[in-house]
Amino acid sequence: MVIIMNPDATAENIKAVIEAVQSVGLAAKVMEGTQQKIVGVLGDKTKLGSMAIDAMEGVEQSVAISKSYKLVSREFHPMSSVIDVSGVKIGGDEPVIMAGPCAVESRNQLLEAAEIAAKGGAQFLRGGAYKPRTSPYSFQGLEEEGLKYLDEARSKYGLKIVTEVTEVEAVKPVSDFADLLQIGARNMQNFRLLKEVGRSNRPVMLKRGLAATLDEWLNAAEYIMAEGNQKVIFCERGIRTYETYTRNTLDMSAVPAIKHLSHLPIIVDPSHGTGKWRMIKPMSLAAIAAGADGLIIEMHPNPAKALSDGPQSITPEHYYETMTAISKLAKFLKDEGINPLND
Amino acid sequence: MVIIMNPDATAENIKAVIEAVQSVGLAAKVMEGTQQKIVGVLGDKTKLGSMAIDAMEGVEQSVAISKSYKLVSREFHPMSSVIDVSGVKIGGDEPVIMAGPCAVESRNQLLEAAEIAAKGGAQFLRGGAYKPRTSPYSFQGLEEEGLKYLDEARSKYGLKIVTEVTEVEAVKPVSDFADLLQIGARNMQNFRLLKEVGRSNRPVMLKRGLAATLDEWLNAAEYIMAEGNQKVIFCERGIRTYETYTRNTLDMSAVPAIKHLSHLPIIVDPSHGTGKWRMIKPMSLAAIAAGADGLIIEMHPNPAKALSDGPQSITPEHYYETMTAISKLAKFLKDEGINPLND
Amino acid sequence: MVIIMNPDATAENIKAVIEAVQSVGLAAKVMEGTQQKIVGVLGDKTKLGSMAIDAMEGVEQSVAISKSYKLVSREFHPMSSVIDVSGVKIGGDEPVIMAGPCAVESRNQLLEAAEIAAKGGAQFLRGGAYKPRTSPYSFQGLEEEGLKYLDEARSKYGLKIVTEVTEVEAVKPVSDFADLLQIGARNMQNFRLLKEVGRSNRPVMLKRGLAATLDEWLNAAEYIMAEGNQKVIFCERGIRTYETYTRNTLDMSAVPAIKHLSHLPIIVDPSHGTGKWRMIKPMSLAAIAAGADGLIIEMHPNPAKALSDGPQSITPEHYYETMTAISKLAKFLKDEGINPLND
Amino acid sequence: MVIIMNPDATAENIKAVIEAVQSVGLAAKVMEGTQQKIVGVLGDKTKLGSMAIDAMEGVEQSVAISKSYKLVSREFHPMSSVIDVSGVKIGGDEPVIMAGPCAVESRNQLLEAAEIAAKGGAQFLRGGAYKPRTSPYSFQGLEEEGLKYLDEARSKYGLKIVTEVTEVEAVKPVSDFADLLQIGARNMQNFRLLKEVGRSNRPVMLKRGLAATLDEWLNAAEYIMAEGNQKVIFCERGIRTYETYTRNTLDMSAVPAIKHLSHLPIIVDPSHGTGKWRMIKPMSLAAIAAGADGLIIEMHPNPAKALSDGPQSITPEHYYETMTAISKLAKFLKDEGINPLND
Repeated sequence: MVIIMNPDATAENIKAVIEAVQSVGLAAKVMEGTQQKIVGVLGDKTKLGSMAIDAMEGVEQSVAISKSYKLVSREFHPMSSVIDVSGVKIGGDEPVIMAGPCAVESRNQLLEAAEIAAKGGAQFLRGGAYKPRTSPYSFQGLEEEGLKYLDEARSKYGLKIVTEVTEVEAVKPVSDFADLLQIGARNMQNFRLLKEVGRSNRPVMLKRGLAATLDEWLNAAEYIMAEGNQKVIFCERGIRTYETYTRNTLDMSAVPAIKHLSHLPIIVDPSHGTGKWRMIKPMSLAAIAAGADGLIIEMHPNPAKALSDGPQSITPEHYYETMTAISKLAKFLKDEGINPLND
Repeated sequence: MVIIMNPDATAENIKAVIEAVQSVGLAAKVMEGTQQKIVGVLGDKTKLGSMAIDAMEGVEQSVAISKSYKLVSREFHPMSSVIDVSGVKIGGDEPVIMAGPCAVESRNQLLEAAEIAAKGGAQFLRGGAYKPRTSPYSFQGLEEEGLKYLDEARSKYGLKIVTEVTEVEAVKPVSDFADLLQIGARNMQNFRLLKEVGRSNRPVMLKRGLAATLDEWLNAAEYIMAEGNQKVIFCERGIRTYETYTRNTLDMSAVPAIKHLSHLPIIVDPSHGTGKWRMIKPMSLAAIAAGADGLIIEMHPNPAKALSDGPQSITPEHYYETMTAISKLAKFLKDEGINPLND
Repeated sequence: MVIIMNPDATAENIKAVIEAVQSVGLAAKVMEGTQQKIVGVLGDKTKLGSMAIDAMEGVEQSVAISKSYKLVSREFHPMSSVIDVSGVKIGGDEPVIMAGPCAVESRNQLLEAAEIAAKGGAQFLRGGAYKPRTSPYSFQGLEEEGLKYLDEARSKYGLKIVTEVTEVEAVKPVSDFADLLQIGARNMQNFRLLKEVGRSNRPVMLKRGLAATLDEWLNAAEYIMAEGNQKVIFCERGIRTYETYTRNTLDMSAVPAIKHLSHLPIIVDPSHGTGKWRMIKPMSLAAIAAGADGLIIEMHPNPAKALSDGPQSITPEHYYETMTAISKLAKFLKDEGINPLND
Repeated sequence: MVIIMNPDATAENIKAVIEAVQSVGLAAKVMEGTQQKIVGVLGDKTKLGSMAIDAMEGVEQSVAISKSYKLVSREFHPMSSVIDVSGVKIGGDEPVIMAGPCAVESRNQLLEAAEIAAKGGAQFLRGGAYKPRTSPYSFQGLEEEGLKYLDEARSKYGLKIVTEVTEVEAVKPVSDFADLLQIGARNMQNFRLLKEVGRSNRPVMLKRGLAATLDEWLNAAEYIMAEGNQKVIFCERGIRTYETYTRNTLDMSAVPAIKHLSHLPIIVDPSHGTGKWRMIKPMSLAAIAAGADGLIIEMHPNPAKALSDGPQSITPEHYYETMTAISKLAKFLKDEGINPLND
């Protein structure tokens, strides 16, 4: 931590700051600038708690330097992690595709979607059984019945299942069943839930919060890893900005950012990221070209009839076309040895 | 709902849209513009689910018209609600002040803070026993021990207690104890938690999410009310924007907006809203002048030693000065009959 | 400037950074943390240009410390400035009110508006003769004809005139005529225009850019002052955020922020700041209570017929009611000696 | 336009709205919903100006439906436009690359950069002679001297020149010299400047404003085209969001959005879009895969010595590596017939 003093800070102000730092067992060094003095804090800054240096007399601002996450950090773990999810490797050579409807609506709809997902080449079937919805009067999911249909689809089409867990009580039953647990955007800082999935033995896909910074997202993953679960996968799903044409603004730069700051894999959700089915193909290709480890795509046998998130679901025809293009692109990048990241 | 067709939509496209609308029992009316056709949907649009009209051929865009919240709405309940919290009325003639430290740190700190809060004229003591923190390595609160100290402070200084509830399991114990339950910004869309406090018999203060729209916030309150708990108070605590000088951007216009859209009271949190102790006095005065029903202010006997959120806590001296000014301003507005709202 | 090195930066990396700093005549001091080294840069950092320290091997990040604006800064000029505009003092004891229509539409409309503005107690008449509009097909203003009507209204009702200047060529003619030049939000970083008004002898009201940080805004004022014109007044008019209920999010905390960082006055525009006429009264009262030096309010003899920005204009009745409340509030704050700012 | 009435609007309110609409020569149709009435406005809505329907009694909200831009719109011009810039085609089969330093710093620096740009395969040399800078004390460009060096580099290496024009007076001299005029982000709504380049005979590259919506951006292009200049190229360069890790958030979805809404080409600027040299390669590949018509990349012979924007400039080595990857990717997409867009 670096503490920047006001130009008119007194010697006493500086002495008080140094004593505050030393009172928690840290060392302080003063550096004299031409306009203002700077106090550098040396040692493990977590000792500082959030001791409110900024509120002391004569202090202009303090600047945190070291990162607060560790297990998630690439500094701590320089090699990229490959996460094994029921035999499918995420973060390895091949991008992993998860496809399926936003919500499980009926047995028929899900089995049909699963057949299409598998035929198109996806390794995972997605589908929400519990749906967090803005209004209490919107469709909230089929719950356990939905899980049963997902299980049937898994056996029949050889797909792995990723599904959202929205509350602590559901972690055990959903873990017993799903291959990959999803923490949704609205729960990214539901710390109680993060700890609970951290104690589960299932891999977790952590979606970025609606307005979460990269730093908050990395710290949310740290909550999971600190409880012992090392299998975390990030999922960029768009952030909230002033632009209203798209449902969210897909932050494609999160892909190289996460790859630089963390050893964990990252996949991209172009469906929630844009809210527009027309953008799924271009954003999927872009994500793979940017170095993403996979995609999660909303596809519906009949999007116009979807109970939830229809405008961002693609039809089976667009899905096949998109999958063919993704697959060719991934092969091209691998064959040519093009690594989008410079590291 | 109004469905706007593309200028080049065919008669068949329009027919398909009408049929889709009728298939869920709603009526459709076509209106011909000079450039494009519009289909109006009549009837209870919740029947539509989110049937994905937008994904149908020839559809440019659909625009929702009626609001999805009802119990929260002023249309539904034209008179302003006054919420009784253990005898203190929120939403009535006098602004209600809640003051105290961000986190309960120790018995001494809390009792000292309570004494100051009461002396300054606050009706409520605030103080977090369970703290949701971005990093798993930050101070997480004293938990039950903290609740015990809050209880002691309440008896000793005749204050009501407002404290945050961060997980479903804590709703029962905290409800047994606190006068007012706080749902924090990070949990504004933790729907499971909203339902649980909706089933409690305690009033709830619902903070606005970090990047929540007014509409999402109103719908979150609807989750609580739909479960039977009619005592909900909104708390504006700043939203996330691009500006980094302040910790958040305090959206003062949320006060007249909520007053217009809902019958429920709204208070303002200038401490989290700005993250700067210097701004607490001006933003408190502004909130009262804008028509807020109260304030929640972070005050700490010794902000420079605060374990959490020090830079935004004011000292006892500033607190007394601010309280005197607020109290005079509230009296002035009442005596002069100045109603900031036009309604 | 403080340069933070990577934990794995080599001794050579650090040497290269020090040499780069020294090559432009600045001194460097190395500070050893437990995790990483920090290089402090001493001396006038403007010598550094933007020498791209961040791109050097082993550098994690550089953090600027001293501010880039000087003439605007309160550090440079501790006493608050009172700006005299044709005899009206802005930044003094009394808030200054500017009122009038968004655009000058006709002689009758303007004279009627001026009469109402004066009767309500405003010192300034506002009204755009040149209107910057998003679409080239929207009404663009009456231009010179509009200036003529403003002049007539000034003589007839004893008001000062504030009007926008949107291009370099207009600075001379508008300066010859207006009492106060307005730089609009869209032109806040039109540096050529800022320099031109900096060379004029007319006071300038500088509106905040749609997405401008406080730092950028202060630097924009520095452009004007660096050319010799010391009479600059800030005007907060709302910033662009994700919220769509209001046209912009009025950043009320900009009032204490600017008062803390600069010696120049700041006024508030609740009309553009919210885009809703219902919010003008509460936001006006809030601004005065927060310490603003004045207000600029859109008022129209007949808002429903306004050619531009009707929804945010108030009627004469609301204007009178709002002015009465503002005037009482300002008197109350003065009589009671309540200073919203702690400084 | 669709006008949504309050549920409690009276018959008189509705009558007044209809009369207001008819008073400007438009037709109105009333549609009765179950909760509220809707008034549809038929005819050329530009006649409405911004007549402030929203401020009328009983009106809840009005929703604009038809777009305000025409010449820019794909509806108006269904075929994609290919813009010829001094013989280089933008918007055709091959992506166009513009490379070079942020600012022209010296003859040597520029000639060296031009040699590298040409060797790597770029068709355009970029380099600012006039630099708009946040602080008046930052390096502002070499101005005419810079143009001279650009001219020399053009002849020597057979590159086209793209350079920014920041003020009306500079349009003529820069048009006489440059192949492509750049309008920078800060000037996207400098309407006077847009009109001036609209009267020039040079193609214009229009950067997206820092916080511009797609709609505002398209309207800004309409200003240029409405003056007669049909050669406009969009350039996405990142938008301002709450995220601070990247300088801006590169909105990759702007590529398919602009391609859908307009017939004009769009290129991407990964350098300003991210502010980080490490992200240039992945974001360049992603942009091409998303369907962008080209890229503008900051490259500097020695980024660590750059006077401006060094952290986002790549070295010659990274530039060559990136160009090779881009070129292979573009060839792959063409050979395989992969069109990222579904249209």
